[in-house]
Amino acid sequence: MKAPIPSATVARLPRYLRCLADLSNVAPQCSSDHIAEGAGVTASQVRKDLSFLGSHGTRGVGYDIDELMNQIRTVLGMTRTHRVVIVGAGNLGSAITNYKGFEIWGFEIVAVLDVDDDKIGSPIDGLIVESFGSLTSIVSERDIEIAVIATPPAAAQSVADKLTSAGVRSILNLAPVVLKTSEGVSVRRVDLSTELGILAYHLSSASVAPGG
Amino acid sequence: MKAPIPSATVARLPRYLRCLADLSNVAPQCSSDHIAEGAGVTASQVRKDLSFLGSHGTRGVGYDIDELMNQIRTVLGMTRTHRVVIVGAGNLGSAITNYKGFEIWGFEIVAVLDVDDDKIGSPIDGLIVESFGSLTSIVSERDIEIAVIATPPAAAQSVADKLTSAGVRSILNLAPVVLKTSEGVSVRRVDLSTELGILAYHLSSASVAPGG
Repeated sequence: MKAPIPSATVARLPRYLRCLADLSNVAPQCSSDHIAEGAGVTASQVRKDLSFLGSHGTRGVGYDIDELMNQIRTVLGMTRTHRVVIVGAGNLGSAITNYKGFEIWGFEIVAVLDVDDDKIGSPIDGLIVESFGSLTSIVSERDIEIAVIATPPAAAQSVADKLTSAGVRSILNLAPVVLKTSEGVSVRRVDLSTELGILAYHLSSASVAPGG
Repeated sequence: MKAPIPSATVARLPRYLRCLADLSNVAPQCSSDHIAEGAGVTASQVRKDLSFLGSHGTRGVGYDIDELMNQIRTVLGMTRTHRVVIVGAGNLGSAITNYKGFEIWGFEIVAVLDVDDDKIGSPIDGLIVESFGSLTSIVSERDIEIAVIATPPAAAQSVADKLTSAGVRSILNLAPVVLKTSEGVSVRRVDLSTELGILAYHLSSASVAPGG
């Protein structure tokens, strides 16, 4: 078994993958400079990150893009499909469900759930909103591994508890609260006010250029 | 002038601020362990990050929560209001506009813009959607500093160019594309498929617990 890849490297790999997909339209090879430019990091960071995958490129030629994309996909577990449930069919849940571009990474949204009788039964991008009360059977019948929480903040913890009980082990939390989950459950949180806070810092110290 | 704070530390400060706001309901002081638990990082990371602010806590007592929150707000430039424009009044733009909790951090959404005549004129959370064609005058008249791009990916680069021309220097990009912007413009990108990719990695290597 290989040593685990540092979390910070893992967090950059999907970004490299997206850059590589763009670069593959231009040429079959690319340099670490090309990847660095698209990903908004330094070329030496790219080389260091890719070395954890055992990928060192060829001097004067660079990286084979197809080979590198396959390596990254394998490491990230993207070589098979991951089925996703969206909890919350409000504006945010609808936006996520409509969000194009998940499929090429191997993510398939197979259910959108809500507790609101007015939303249950209505269509979103080819799916019909179903009752959150059916969570456990839906997760098991459809082999769901990943959940996205797009509920109001007050509901997020109770939703996370029910997802965990239903066997979901990976949660993307879009509600602005910190979730407590049991060991073995991975939670990523996207907090938009955090992102705005970082921008505000750069406004007040204009000499620093953050990564994009 | 103080030395700039490392980007990774800046990125964690808004998260600490949110934890401190929660902790302030319980007691006037807290330890680095308390902050670490809420923020999903180690206590030594918290102490190191806060030392960049000149804040070292008191042995046996910990940090004064009000004082620490003020220090972080000052560093992040949150002690004054930042006016925000949302570009794109679709599901995602509507979700952001309705997203509660920006105000307490000093962000005020003062305009929502779209190019779609069907959307222009309709209300979202107390605002009326206005024409993207009026961007330049709206930015200057309302002192807008930060823009959130919530458009389809194909429109995002052209929107970013127009925002830059209009004088906006901080952009939060929610469209799944890498933007090219001129020097002096800060761009943060929230890419949901990247977040899902990181979760997929943790699914395939279940022994690693990522930060939440």
